[in-house]
Amino acid sequence: MNSVKPVDLLILNAEQVLCFQPSDAETAVLGWDFRVLQNTAIAIKDGKIYKLGSPSEVEKKCFTTSSTQVIDASGKVVLPGFVDSHTHPVFFGTRESEFEMRIQGKSYEEIARAGGGIRSSVHQLRQASKEELLLAVRRQLHYFLEYGTTTIEAKSGYGLSFADEVKSLEVIRELNQQQPLELIPTFLGAHEVPDEYRHNRQKYIDIIVHEMIPYVAENNLAEFCDVFCEKQVFSIEESRRILLAAKEAGLKIKLHADQLHQTGAAELAAELGATSADHLEKVSEAGIAALAHSGTVAGLLPGSVFFLSSQNYPPARRLIQAGVPVALATDFNPGTCMSQSMPMMLTLAGLFMKMTPAEAIVAATANGAKAVDRGNQLGNLAEGKPADLVIWNVSDYRQIPYHFGVNLVNVVIKNGKIVVQHKVEQFQ
Amino acid sequence: MNSVKPVDLLILNAEQVLCFQPSDAETAVLGWDFRVLQNTAIAIKDGKIYKLGSPSEVEKKCFTTSSTQVIDASGKVVLPGFVDSHTHPVFFGTRESEFEMRIQGKSYEEIARAGGGIRSSVHQLRQASKEELLLAVRRQLHYFLEYGTTTIEAKSGYGLSFADEVKSLEVIRELNQQQPLELIPTFLGAHEVPDEYRHNRQKYIDIIVHEMIPYVAENNLAEFCDVFCEKQVFSIEESRRILLAAKEAGLKIKLHADQLHQTGAAELAAELGATSADHLEKVSEAGIAALAHSGTVAGLLPGSVFFLSSQNYPPARRLIQAGVPVALATDFNPGTCMSQSMPMMLTLAGLFMKMTPAEAIVAATANGAKAVDRGNQLGNLAEGKPADLVIWNVSDYRQIPYHFGVNLVNVVIKNGKIVVQHKVEQFQ
Repeated sequence: MNSVKPVDLLILNAEQVLCFQPSDAETAVLGWDFRVLQNTAIAIKDGKIYKLGSPSEVEKKCFTTSSTQVIDASGKVVLPGFVDSHTHPVFFGTRESEFEMRIQGKSYEEIARAGGGIRSSVHQLRQASKEELLLAVRRQLHYFLEYGTTTIEAKSGYGLSFADEVKSLEVIRELNQQQPLELIPTFLGAHEVPDEYRHNRQKYIDIIVHEMIPYVAENNLAEFCDVFCEKQVFSIEESRRILLAAKEAGLKIKLHADQLHQTGAAELAAELGATSADHLEKVSEAGIAALAHSGTVAGLLPGSVFFLSSQNYPPARRLIQAGVPVALATDFNPGTCMSQSMPMMLTLAGLFMKMTPAEAIVAATANGAKAVDRGNQLGNLAEGKPADLVIWNVSDYRQIPYHFGVNLVNVVIKNGKIVVQHKVEQFQ
Repeated sequence: MNSVKPVDLLILNAEQVLCFQPSDAETAVLGWDFRVLQNTAIAIKDGKIYKLGSPSEVEKKCFTTSSTQVIDASGKVVLPGFVDSHTHPVFFGTRESEFEMRIQGKSYEEIARAGGGIRSSVHQLRQASKEELLLAVRRQLHYFLEYGTTTIEAKSGYGLSFADEVKSLEVIRELNQQQPLELIPTFLGAHEVPDEYRHNRQKYIDIIVHEMIPYVAENNLAEFCDVFCEKQVFSIEESRRILLAAKEAGLKIKLHADQLHQTGAAELAAELGATSADHLEKVSEAGIAALAHSGTVAGLLPGSVFFLSSQNYPPARRLIQAGVPVALATDFNPGTCMSQSMPMMLTLAGLFMKMTPAEAIVAATANGAKAVDRGNQLGNLAEGKPADLVIWNVSDYRQIPYHFGVNLVNVVIKNGKIVVQHKVEQFQ
């Protein structure tokens, strides 16, 4: 039955629409057939893509009414909304003073030892009421939408106590109701050992395993559990214990892996069947092989490498060649990547990880969705999928990473609703 | 006579207002006393700053009428508008395909030899009518204003024939009338030797010296003359000849100096009393000493270093220590820096040139003005100066380089008029 239906929103004349189909072909881009459709129309109904195709195909299947919004996308590009699969947005207070200290010559590790770093954010978050925290986080969320992101994975991890981790996850839950950006919650109680357990870290891990994880899982406060596996943070054995407890409780798992030192965390992520292993600046060849074998997504975060003035970008090309599914994300956080801009990450991925514009876009959309276990739902444009898409003020998708540092977004649509609309200002 | 006057625009309650006074003190920032005023008001009349100070001081000197615009800048920062002292905005057609080629492994020099680079922009610009060119340039200018820039230096240099260089400079002149961004024109006929003179470069230089420069100067089409002094472009001797002819004709001079190779161009700029010597990635110690002695501004362009995936940033700290006035600019152009964002340049200056937020802001405002010979006029906030200023959605100026890749601008005012106003969207 192919009945003709009235639609809510109709996008016409798009210069380029990017669509991906799984593919084993040699021409595949990160495992996807990367298609650039020209002069394409998209009809949206009930929050979903109802029809996508040539103007005549779409016209046959739908009609407009007085309440249909019609957008002329002539000379513009349409992409799936970005799925930013690694963010730390639940913080209270920014850390520009540490940015200045680093410029003046202090290393990130020195700043951390001096009470800065994650621990300073923990101190600030604990002081804030849930209402104060919610307002502060909400102020930061709009920038994601403004730059074309329609879904983020959002971690707790600046609470590091039962009450403050729960407060953080409840803020994420409430923000999901209050505004259009979709947040997928991750419990990251194992982001750092808090000061009060510095000399009894085992006790803190016990609290994570026996108190926090069961409560988070029972109350559906998070979908994923993540651990910062790193020298002087959580060891491989500690990470394994926490992640196994999380799996036991029904949470899916992620891992901060091989960022500053090669610890074998990528191998652990693969062993445990993690949905993603993120960072990977120092991943070993064995780690790459393990990820390729397990199908764990490699979440690459060039923004934090850049923001730490480092040249140690993760080995994107080697991961791609090995067949590991690669995703790009911002790592948005107040210490090591104060940016919500996925276009900026595409630029960095091109310049420093040698990912082409096509690869970077797939990594930021379809593979971003895989990294949050939404591979069949988000990060792609197809009939029946949620209408999460962005119209860009460019005539060629490659301009998105090329024209950097400015916002090229025209319209952002989340679940079929226009949530951002920038005027094209041209002094006309 | 201190009469009380009605004002056109009144900014109240600014959390921080940044002002600079020349200073020799040890605490000086790039030769300026860097003052952060708190809870400050700014009254604007007839396009100029009429009064700047504490609320009570300002109140004593002015009053509002029904036509006065009042802006509450509580919790916000006010800076002078950025003066971007090095841009190449007069081009027709973008070059994202070269960006992709570089990612795929081609060097900038290989792309240039294959007909890409500056010569591809020359080809495109020559095909465009003046009207087409004007529209294309105008579309790009708005991004400068959007990101807090109120004045740019604008070079020709993609024409490389008498007619096409004049066309480019006439486009700059017309755009100065049509829209609020102020453009200071620079003749850069010596940007490259065009293909038709590849085997007779002397002839092209003769045309620059005997035809282009006299016409440009007589018709006030440019205020500056610039040369791309670089191995395989224009030699030291060729550059000297062109710049001396320009001085003779009454133009002030600038120089692309020591970008890819150490040629001694900084020394030449100092010798000839250039207003600025720009790039300087490869400047020698002798070049630094010469610039310090002549007072020539060092125009640093981190965006093009970044965009070429290079680590060879100019030695900002050595230049600063030697007492050279340092300016920051975008180098906006379609080949090596497709960005109009000065905030992005501040971030790069911090991360890779170790310039503090205060230094970077002075370099992008007061010293940017020096680099276009507007040191007494632009790039600073003081009574009597043009009201070119930007209100930022941040409570601490250090957040501007820290929170990167997104637009933190709230309001842009050029000559006392609001030319950009962003809503603060917070889902409220």
